[in-house]
Amino acid sequence: MSVRPSVTAQGRHMRAVDIIRRKRDHHELTRSEIEAFARAAADGSWPDYQLSALLMAICLNGMSLVETAILTGAMAASGTRYRWDDLPAPKADKHSTGGVGDKTSLILAPLAAACGVVVPMMSGRALGHTGGTLDKLESIPGFRVGLEEGELRAALKAVGVGMIGQTARVAPADRKLYALRDVTATVESVPLITASILSKKLAEGIDALVMDVKSGRGAFMKTRDQARTLARSIVDVGTANGVRTEALITAMDLPLGRAVGNALEVVECVETLKGQGPKDLEDLSVTLAARMIRLAGVVETDQDAERCVRSALSSGAGLERFRRVIEQQGGDPKVVDDYARLPKAPRHSMVPADRDGYVTDLDAEKIGVGAMRLGAGRNRAEDPIDPAVGVVVRAPVGVRVKAGDAVLEVHYRDEALLGAAAPLLRSAVAIGDEAPTWTSLLLEEVR
Amino acid sequence: MSVRPSVTAQGRHMRAVDIIRRKRDHHELTRSEIEAFARAAADGSWPDYQLSALLMAICLNGMSLVETAILTGAMAASGTRYRWDDLPAPKADKHSTGGVGDKTSLILAPLAAACGVVVPMMSGRALGHTGGTLDKLESIPGFRVGLEEGELRAALKAVGVGMIGQTARVAPADRKLYALRDVTATVESVPLITASILSKKLAEGIDALVMDVKSGRGAFMKTRDQARTLARSIVDVGTANGVRTEALITAMDLPLGRAVGNALEVVECVETLKGQGPKDLEDLSVTLAARMIRLAGVVETDQDAERCVRSALSSGAGLERFRRVIEQQGGDPKVVDDYARLPKAPRHSMVPADRDGYVTDLDAEKIGVGAMRLGAGRNRAEDPIDPAVGVVVRAPVGVRVKAGDAVLEVHYRDEALLGAAAPLLRSAVAIGDEAPTWTSLLLEEVR
Repeated sequence: MSVRPSVTAQGRHMRAVDIIRRKRDHHELTRSEIEAFARAAADGSWPDYQLSALLMAICLNGMSLVETAILTGAMAASGTRYRWDDLPAPKADKHSTGGVGDKTSLILAPLAAACGVVVPMMSGRALGHTGGTLDKLESIPGFRVGLEEGELRAALKAVGVGMIGQTARVAPADRKLYALRDVTATVESVPLITASILSKKLAEGIDALVMDVKSGRGAFMKTRDQARTLARSIVDVGTANGVRTEALITAMDLPLGRAVGNALEVVECVETLKGQGPKDLEDLSVTLAARMIRLAGVVETDQDAERCVRSALSSGAGLERFRRVIEQQGGDPKVVDDYARLPKAPRHSMVPADRDGYVTDLDAEKIGVGAMRLGAGRNRAEDPIDPAVGVVVRAPVGVRVKAGDAVLEVHYRDEALLGAAAPLLRSAVAIGDEAPTWTSLLLEEVR
Repeated sequence: MSVRPSVTAQGRHMRAVDIIRRKRDHHELTRSEIEAFARAAADGSWPDYQLSALLMAICLNGMSLVETAILTGAMAASGTRYRWDDLPAPKADKHSTGGVGDKTSLILAPLAAACGVVVPMMSGRALGHTGGTLDKLESIPGFRVGLEEGELRAALKAVGVGMIGQTARVAPADRKLYALRDVTATVESVPLITASILSKKLAEGIDALVMDVKSGRGAFMKTRDQARTLARSIVDVGTANGVRTEALITAMDLPLGRAVGNALEVVECVETLKGQGPKDLEDLSVTLAARMIRLAGVVETDQDAERCVRSALSSGAGLERFRRVIEQQGGDPKVVDDYARLPKAPRHSMVPADRDGYVTDLDAEKIGVGAMRLGAGRNRAEDPIDPAVGVVVRAPVGVRVKAGDAVLEVHYRDEALLGAAAPLLRSAVAIGDEAPTWTSLLLEEVR
C-alpha cells in the first residue's frame, strides 16, 4: 500500500458540511478545504446539493484573493494542463468577458504570432447577446476547433496559433461548477467568475495573459465598478498562479466594429488584417496584441510592442499568418481573398433613419439580442446557430444621416426571425440633432 | 380536462433559478414563489441542488415574517393535516426546542387533558445531547408511538391525549428540507427553524400552542438574543397561521429536574405527577400546562389556569390521566406504581465531589453528551438507544457537599461506554466555596 501525501489525505476526510458551514459563517477556507471542494466537483465525491450550497455561500459571502487563487489553481489541476516546454517561444493569450461584435481574437492572435508569441487559445461559444470565437471560426468552411493535443501542438509549432474549444479533459471541476451555477443563480460572483475563467487559461500552459474586461450595457459587467473589481481579481489571481496578467477595461455600449454575426465578422477581421477595418476594432486589436507580446517578454515597452504589431499589420504578415492558421486547422484559406466562399444570408433588409440628424446611439445589447434572434447566436447552450445571418452597421455613431438612409443592414434567412428581431433593432438606433461627443474605448488599465 | 387554479398554474411554471436569484438578491419572495418551493420539496419537482441553493440563500439573506408564515403554511399543506371537528374540546400542544432532562411533555399533557384540553402531540426523538419524548415513552414496556389516524382519534376521544411521532404523510416538504439542511449547513436559520417546527404543529390541527424556547449552553439557542428572536418568530408565524401561540424562554444551563435518560426520566415524571418531583420540573410543567389551557380558552387568566392545573396535580387526576394514556397506547400502566417494571441498568457508578463546598455548576451540555455516550441518546439519527441508562443528579446546584459525596449517579450497562462518558461527566461538575445565587428558570415571556 502506498502512503498518500498528508494534505490529500486530510482533504479526503474533511466533511463537506463543515466546509460549507465555515464559508456560511464568513470564515476564510483553508487550502485543504478548497482543494477538497474542487476535487469533489471533478470526481463527484460530493453530491450536487452540497456543491450548490457552497456555491451560494461563496456567492453571498465572497472569497479572499488567497482563497480565489487556491480555488483557481485547484480547478486547473483537476484536469489536463498543457505543457509546451518543447516550444521555445513565450506563450500568451487574450481573454474577453464577452461583447457584441467583439472579434479581436481572430485579429490579434495572428498579429501576436507574427511578433514571435505562441498563442494556445481556448475559446467559448456564443451565448445570449454575446458572440463566441468558436462559432465565428466555424463559419469558415472546414475549420476545425476540436483539435487533439497532438494536433494543437503541431499547429503551435507550425503557425504559432491554435484556436480550440474546451475539451472534457480540461478543468472538469469548472465544467461541473459552471453547469451548476447556471441553474442555481450563482453565476454573478467575482471569485467564481475569476476561478472559472482563469482555471481554463492556466490549463492552456501560458506565461502571460491580457484580459479584456468589457464594461457597459452590452457587457456582462454593466458598471465600471463591477468591471474594475473583476479586472483586479483576475490580474491578482492570475499573477498569484504564476501567469503574468494585466487587464484592460474597455467600453461595451456600442457594438465593436461594424459587423455582428459570425461570417460577417470573419469578413471584417480579414478586412482589418488588410488594413481596411474600422478604426475602433483595429486599435483595440493592436493594443491587446501589443500587451500580449510585451507581457510575454518579446519586447520591453508598450511602444516597442505596438510598433511591432503595427508593422505586422501593415506588412501583411498578420494577414498571411491568419491564412496559415485557417489552413492548419482544416479551413478554406481562400476565404481571405474571396468572401463569397463564406456562408451568405439569402435576404437583406434595412433599418433606416427615421429623421435627419446624427446617429447618437446604437445599443449594443439590443443589437446583440436582435442578431441572436436572427439566428446568429444562442438563447440556450444547445440551440443551433446560423453562420450567415447578422447585422452590419452602415452608419456608426457620429455619422450624419438623412431620413430613410440605412443605419443597420440586416442579413437574414427567415422572415419570422426577422419579424422577431426587427423591433429590437429599430429601437437600438437613436438619431439626434447634435453630434455626440467622442468617448474612448479604452477606459482603464489594471496591472 | 380540468382547469387548474391560476396560482397553482403560475407556481408550476415559475423557474427555480429565478426564485433562487430573487432571494439571493435580497428580494421578498411572493406567495406563488414560496408555494412553488414547498411543493417542489414535497414532490421532487426541483432537483436537490436547487432546493439547497435556495436554502443557503434563505439562511444567509433571511425571510420576512410574511414569507416565513407563507412557507410554514405551504409546508403544512404539503401533507396530511389532521382535523378534529368531531371533538368539541379545544386542542392545544406544547413544543420545546430541546434540552437536557427536558421531560415536561409527559407531565403537562395529562395535566392539561385533566383540565379539559385535547392534546394531539407529535414529538421527536433524541439527537445529539438533547433527549426526545418518543424515546422516553418507548421506555415504558409496550408503549406504541406509531398510531394510525384512527387510533390517534380514538385516543384523543378516550383520554384527551395522543402522543405520536411524525409520519411520512405529515409535512413531507419539511421532511425533505430537514434532511437537506442537515447536510448543507443550513440548519441554523430562524425562518427555516420556525417553518420546520410550526409546519408539523399546524398539521396537528391544534387551536393553541405554547412554545418552550430553551436558552443557554445546553440549548440549541446559546444566547438570549437568539432565543428571543426564535420565540418572536414562532409566536408571530403561528398566530399568522391561525394558531394562538405564545412562547416562554426558559434557562437551559443546568439539566431540568434530576434525571437524564429515558426510563429514569419516566420515573421522575411519575414522581412529579405524584407531587414528589423536583420543584424546577414541577413548576415549569405547571406553568406550561396553565398557558396551554388559558390559550385554549378553557379559562381566562393565568391565575385561574394555574389553579386548575395545580388542582389536577394535587388531586391525582393528572397521574390517573397519565396511567390511562399509557394504557390507551398499549403500554404497561402498572409502571406508575411499580418502577421495577421499567428497564433498569445493571450497574451504577458515582461522580463524587472532589472537595468540600457547594455544588456551583452542573453543565447541562456535558451531562447531555455524557448520557448520550452511555447509550441514552443518539449521535446520528440511525443509532439505537438504551432506554435504561442515564444520569441522576444526587446533589443539585446549591447543595453543600463533602469530598467523596455523590454528585451524579451514573446508570450504565457497558464499561467501555462508561469510560467514554465519565471524563465528561466529571468535568460537568463544579464545586466552590460559596453557595451560588439562585436564578429563575423562566427568563422571558413572548406573546
